[in-house]
Amino acid sequence: MATTEPEVAPGGRVTFRVRAPNAREVRVQYEGGGDTGNMQKDEDGLWSFMTPPLEPDIYSYTFFVDGLRSIDLNNPLLKYNLLYTDNQVEERGTTALPWEMQDVPHGQLHRHFYKSAATGEDRDFYVYTPPGYSPQWHRYPVLYLLHGISDDASGWTVAGRQNVILDNLIARGAAKPMVVVMPLGYGTMDMVRQGWSRISSAGRWETNLQQFRARLLDEVMPQVEASYRLSNHPQDRAIAGLSMGGAESLFVGLTEPKRFAWIGAFSSGGVGANFLELLPTLDSSANHRLGLLWISCGKNDSLYDSNQALVESLKGKGIHCTWREVPGEHSWRVWRPNLVEFAPLLFH
Amino acid sequence: MATTEPEVAPGGRVTFRVRAPNAREVRVQYEGGGDTGNMQKDEDGLWSFMTPPLEPDIYSYTFFVDGLRSIDLNNPLLKYNLLYTDNQVEERGTTALPWEMQDVPHGQLHRHFYKSAATGEDRDFYVYTPPGYSPQWHRYPVLYLLHGISDDASGWTVAGRQNVILDNLIARGAAKPMVVVMPLGYGTMDMVRQGWSRISSAGRWETNLQQFRARLLDEVMPQVEASYRLSNHPQDRAIAGLSMGGAESLFVGLTEPKRFAWIGAFSSGGVGANFLELLPTLDSSANHRLGLLWISCGKNDSLYDSNQALVESLKGKGIHCTWREVPGEHSWRVWRPNLVEFAPLLFH
Repeated sequence: MATTEPEVAPGGRVTFRVRAPNAREVRVQYEGGGDTGNMQKDEDGLWSFMTPPLEPDIYSYTFFVDGLRSIDLNNPLLKYNLLYTDNQVEERGTTALPWEMQDVPHGQLHRHFYKSAATGEDRDFYVYTPPGYSPQWHRYPVLYLLHGISDDASGWTVAGRQNVILDNLIARGAAKPMVVVMPLGYGTMDMVRQGWSRISSAGRWETNLQQFRARLLDEVMPQVEASYRLSNHPQDRAIAGLSMGGAESLFVGLTEPKRFAWIGAFSSGGVGANFLELLPTLDSSANHRLGLLWISCGKNDSLYDSNQALVESLKGKGIHCTWREVPGEHSWRVWRPNLVEFAPLLFH
Repeated sequence: MATTEPEVAPGGRVTFRVRAPNAREVRVQYEGGGDTGNMQKDEDGLWSFMTPPLEPDIYSYTFFVDGLRSIDLNNPLLKYNLLYTDNQVEERGTTALPWEMQDVPHGQLHRHFYKSAATGEDRDFYVYTPPGYSPQWHRYPVLYLLHGISDDASGWTVAGRQNVILDNLIARGAAKPMVVVMPLGYGTMDMVRQGWSRISSAGRWETNLQQFRARLLDEVMPQVEASYRLSNHPQDRAIAGLSMGGAESLFVGLTEPKRFAWIGAFSSGGVGANFLELLPTLDSSANHRLGLLWISCGKNDSLYDSNQALVESLKGKGIHCTWREVPGEHSWRVWRPNLVEFAPLLFH
């Protein structure tokens, strides 16, 4: 891409810059940087801030110009979001990270459009087909991969680099070639149409889980299965997601055992010990049907305690699950590595 | 989409708003609005501006907050661009416009990734397949559709609504079902990597035309023809584009008559009477090979005179072309209607 800003110096120091001669205070907030940094103005009105050395990764950042949240229009690397679009800066080390595009065969991304019969909304979903995908060859396993609240169906490719990660894993034989489906994760768009106000209203979260399940099972999956050559055995179907999508993966996966045998929940939102009240029929008989129930959270995520509580209550019911604590916050810096670790475990 | 801002009132008045309590001057610039409008601040620090009634269309806009170019982060409708990302607001009338998603069968968008052997760059291109596309059915005609400078391969779908326009045209039988390929329009990314400084350097434009042609013929077309079921007759291949992509369409189309019989050039950049010096072998013998040479420009475009001069010099050489003057500036408000008018003319 034609990135001109910010500047990444050897050793990992990043210099952010924004020209705002009339501003009185400009700050930059970047992932992993804790609180915001105060930028310094030079005589030409160019504000700048140099970070300490950062380890190689992709970092989101935003400017605050006299308090106004602003994106860096000199950096074409945008992370699109329905509520919080921001920029990214990529710090590369000597070894390519699993989410850096490498010289390996690439899969393709397909974007489908449809009108939802249930909501009347124009909706879309994305499908990744692995390198060499051939509808004549065999029936592929499929991972349904869900974004978090405020993202849309593009989140896992734009910010999550799903396609790059799978290309790289498949190239080194670490993951099976699979199709990945990334639907829009809202039961209805009301969930985000009025910002955060509606999300926290009573019962909204549970209603969304049920509505999302209906959109996925009744609208997305039939189109996907008609368009791609997929296995329809539950052992060949996985569902995973982050934050809201983590809760959705648990809810759909655990209520639809005849459809999904592999479940991943990354930094799930709205879970905790009482989440299992939404799954009254769940008991240890689920163990023999599940290939994997994988639950992860960043140790510095504010959702850490509720995720840990969920795992404890699952174990209390005798349900096997893998609990992965990883460094980090509620961030794509956690979810990209989650996918790198989770995808190779699937479909064995 | 979850648009919360701006507000579009019945009758077509748009109210733009941005909260910036510490700013001293906030202006909004919107397509068709001529110069910028001064926004007014209320006691809570919310700046607003109401437009006169606007005819139904999609309008780009940007804020200037104390002189700093800013996008509207409360509006998820972004028009991504390598240099000038801005927002869009959609004003809908009682009759759906050809670029509004309607309840018709939808085609799909496919994104391909590859490493350019010539430049070493990681590149992508998009392919639209029409509703009901079936590789078993027959060989489809194909339109190569090129973006302008500062856009990337996503420009024609994000801002141009190519897929929506073709879906709608095909649904009412106005255009033949066709595959549309949207490549990255730069010979090398140096063309935009350093902003505008390199673009205007001597010979850069001509070099880019030649380099782009090589990327298209040697890298993109072989992948496209291996992946989709396309006719390889020149009568079934078109090339069209806007601004830089208009010049590229003329250059590639007129130098490759064995490949392309249909050419469209919308608001072409870097053309004029002497553009034909780049095409020394072009003469009226081209007429019998060409299905259509269609050149258009907005009457208020600063490139209008050079496009008109090009048309005169083509006519002077006895080459048939269709010259379409349309209302408007150098804007997607011209190029969307251009595609609506051009696509139905193809492949007859």
